[in-house]
Amino acid sequence: MKPPEKTYNQLAGQNVNRIEAVSDGVFAVAFTLLVLDLRVPMGEAIKTEQDLIAAFCNLTPKLLTYFMSFMTLGIFWTGHSAQFHFIDKSDRHLNWISLFFLLFVSLVPFTTAFLSEHIAFKFSILVYWANIFALGVMVWLNWWYANKQGFVKLAAYELKSVHKAIANRIIVAQLLYALGALLCLINNYLSIGFIIIVQLNYAFAFFYRRAPRTRVKT
Amino acid sequence: MKPPEKTYNQLAGQNVNRIEAVSDGVFAVAFTLLVLDLRVPMGEAIKTEQDLIAAFCNLTPKLLTYFMSFMTLGIFWTGHSAQFHFIDKSDRHLNWISLFFLLFVSLVPFTTAFLSEHIAFKFSILVYWANIFALGVMVWLNWWYANKQGFVKLAAYELKSVHKAIANRIIVAQLLYALGALLCLINNYLSIGFIIIVQLNYAFAFFYRRAPRTRVKT
Amino acid sequence: MKPPEKTYNQLAGQNVNRIEAVSDGVFAVAFTLLVLDLRVPMGEAIKTEQDLIAAFCNLTPKLLTYFMSFMTLGIFWTGHSAQFHFIDKSDRHLNWISLFFLLFVSLVPFTTAFLSEHIAFKFSILVYWANIFALGVMVWLNWWYANKQGFVKLAAYELKSVHKAIANRIIVAQLLYALGALLCLINNYLSIGFIIIVQLNYAFAFFYRRAPRTRVKT
Amino acid sequence: MKPPEKTYNQLAGQNVNRIEAVSDGVFAVAFTLLVLDLRVPMGEAIKTEQDLIAAFCNLTPKLLTYFMSFMTLGIFWTGHSAQFHFIDKSDRHLNWISLFFLLFVSLVPFTTAFLSEHIAFKFSILVYWANIFALGVMVWLNWWYANKQGFVKLAAYELKSVHKAIANRIIVAQLLYALGALLCLINNYLSIGFIIIVQLNYAFAFFYRRAPRTRVKT
Repeated sequence: MKPPEKTYNQLAGQNVNRIEAVSDGVFAVAFTLLVLDLRVPMGEAIKTEQDLIAAFCNLTPKLLTYFMSFMTLGIFWTGHSAQFHFIDKSDRHLNWISLFFLLFVSLVPFTTAFLSEHIAFKFSILVYWANIFALGVMVWLNWWYANKQGFVKLAAYELKSVHKAIANRIIVAQLLYALGALLCLINNYLSIGFIIIVQLNYAFAFFYRRAPRTRVKT
Repeated sequence: MKPPEKTYNQLAGQNVNRIEAVSDGVFAVAFTLLVLDLRVPMGEAIKTEQDLIAAFCNLTPKLLTYFMSFMTLGIFWTGHSAQFHFIDKSDRHLNWISLFFLLFVSLVPFTTAFLSEHIAFKFSILVYWANIFALGVMVWLNWWYANKQGFVKLAAYELKSVHKAIANRIIVAQLLYALGALLCLINNYLSIGFIIIVQLNYAFAFFYRRAPRTRVKT
Repeated sequence: MKPPEKTYNQLAGQNVNRIEAVSDGVFAVAFTLLVLDLRVPMGEAIKTEQDLIAAFCNLTPKLLTYFMSFMTLGIFWTGHSAQFHFIDKSDRHLNWISLFFLLFVSLVPFTTAFLSEHIAFKFSILVYWANIFALGVMVWLNWWYANKQGFVKLAAYELKSVHKAIANRIIVAQLLYALGALLCLINNYLSIGFIIIVQLNYAFAFFYRRAPRTRVKT
Repeated sequence: MKPPEKTYNQLAGQNVNRIEAVSDGVFAVAFTLLVLDLRVPMGEAIKTEQDLIAAFCNLTPKLLTYFMSFMTLGIFWTGHSAQFHFIDKSDRHLNWISLFFLLFVSLVPFTTAFLSEHIAFKFSILVYWANIFALGVMVWLNWWYANKQGFVKLAAYELKSVHKAIANRIIVAQLLYALGALLCLINNYLSIGFIIIVQLNYAFAFFYRRAPRTRVKT
């Protein structure tokens, strides 16, 4: 029997572990590069403790955007890794969806610095929001495609409710981010404050009650 | 039978390996970013070997804080990974505790540069100490929560003594760091020197005698 | 029986997992360091939203080269990890082939910044292309050597068609990149545009039809 | 029976995988941070292709030290990972030996930049050599301690020859590096050239003949 012809496209991107590893790496660097935007106040102007405290307080916008971006990255890292917790196969397309997702992850330190430098301008909120939106689209594409191709290792029984939970979370979150971005029409700090509150809610899950019995077994 | 409703919060953060991977990544970048604070002396002022040696010696405060921060990160990395050596489950809360822990890890290069730039000011010691304190709180929260939720894979028999050892270590260490920070009321170099000695003790474990028979089997 | 003499060269580089781990790490950092070339426009010149939008638009050459380099890295990461999906042994030579491959990976942020800074010069296209060419040579050497030494874990039956697919891909891609680089004789943006189109084709695989039945089982 | 008292020192540093992961991470970042020393020539002075080629050629000392440091890191990464290929246990001391090893790894981008900036001074060769020497000491300590504690998973039969091979390699390499550093008494470029030739020999293993039958089975 003649062996089947292979194309390169059939060979690429099959290794789920490598996708997870490079994703963790890009997130780890992005998390840490954010700090490069927190430039230490320098100069001979700082002569007393009060000067230094004042200089530190001037960093507030940068600390605020630093915190917001750390939360943004944390939320999407959690989302991406939660999806891959259920995905046990991959192909070249899923591989590239993750790479484009990582493209937008690696842009976060830039859009953060852009926002913190021009925190009074609506356009910087728009750029920052576009980044969050692109992350949302990619993370949704990732799940949609993996699900469509049967790469998710859940029984049909559980898959349906997991799918619904993931879809709902992405849609609701993106609506809230869009609303937050729109608030810049009133005031930029209101916009940033709203987004941070949304993020804190996702981190702390204020309204979350654990239901041990219905936990997904994996 | 109707499948149980899932919420996204039940799906997220279950993968211990991913938490460990992204933590190793953030620590690796933070360890290495510290070096960016060691700026190479430049300029035409350096004309002889003596000039260069003098310029190198001027880096002493930076080398000192570099070393201290490397030790700080090393101690907390060792602590965090020792905890996860015993943790074999996770949920969204434990996931976020680790992410907030990493937030403070990624701040270490900033607080280090802040301290090394303003090494004579008490306020920079305070900022640096606040960072260490936050790391201590998060690493303690991590263990406390994992233990409470039954995510630790030790038999009750061993768990008790492991728990006591971890708790003692964190409390004693934080008391020593706080004492070290307070020494800045006398002199900042005394404060930094004391903290480095505490750290060296934790690294070299001068008073540690191995007791091979009682080692924890895992 | 006398134990065989070992040389250090027989011991080194045997661990495939470590090669994969350090490769993912270098790629992750390189992906993210690219963003450092996107410098946020600063200064008091920016007074209105229009100023800021104009300043953002001035980043176009940098965004273009950023995107091109992200694609370059993504394509070679995919290629390298696809090869290691089939490689399950290593020796010191394969280890060093991967390290030299990573040398050229880590140069990508530099050649990208060089190109984006001097985007009108043919010499910067040449430097950038030389980097892509070196990556191609190393990735080919990697497969050729692993194959020659019998480190590929495929049955002879499948190995032949996999080998052919990988060889074809590398040769065709390198011919297209060389053609793209040559287009700089006409115009640099034409050259960059052509390379990006080639890359998009490799990412999206426009002409790729999945053939589920002949998929490689691994 | 009363459970044995644990001390924190008995719990820490037992996870070999984590040590390997954080090492790969630090090396990956260090490999890539080296490139930050290759600053792209800027400015309006560059008006023709010839200007740009001249500016690129001025980067020669930086490219040389970049290459040398990539080799240095590659050699020590290979050495460290070859050792851990045989080590399957760890304790807190081995954990800290690796962390101090990583301390000197993370200094390599600094000592490289220091050397490339002051390439005509003997003191920069001394600093660079001290870094290589410290790496050698730590990598030797790592093996010596792991071996002493019985953490190496080889049969006594093989252990002896592996031990001898590793010891020989480290001693010979360090003697050659010391000789290379001493050559700076004649000329710095001679010194750097000699070190690079030693490194190329270790990478390409010119005099290495594979002896398939005596290969270590692991």
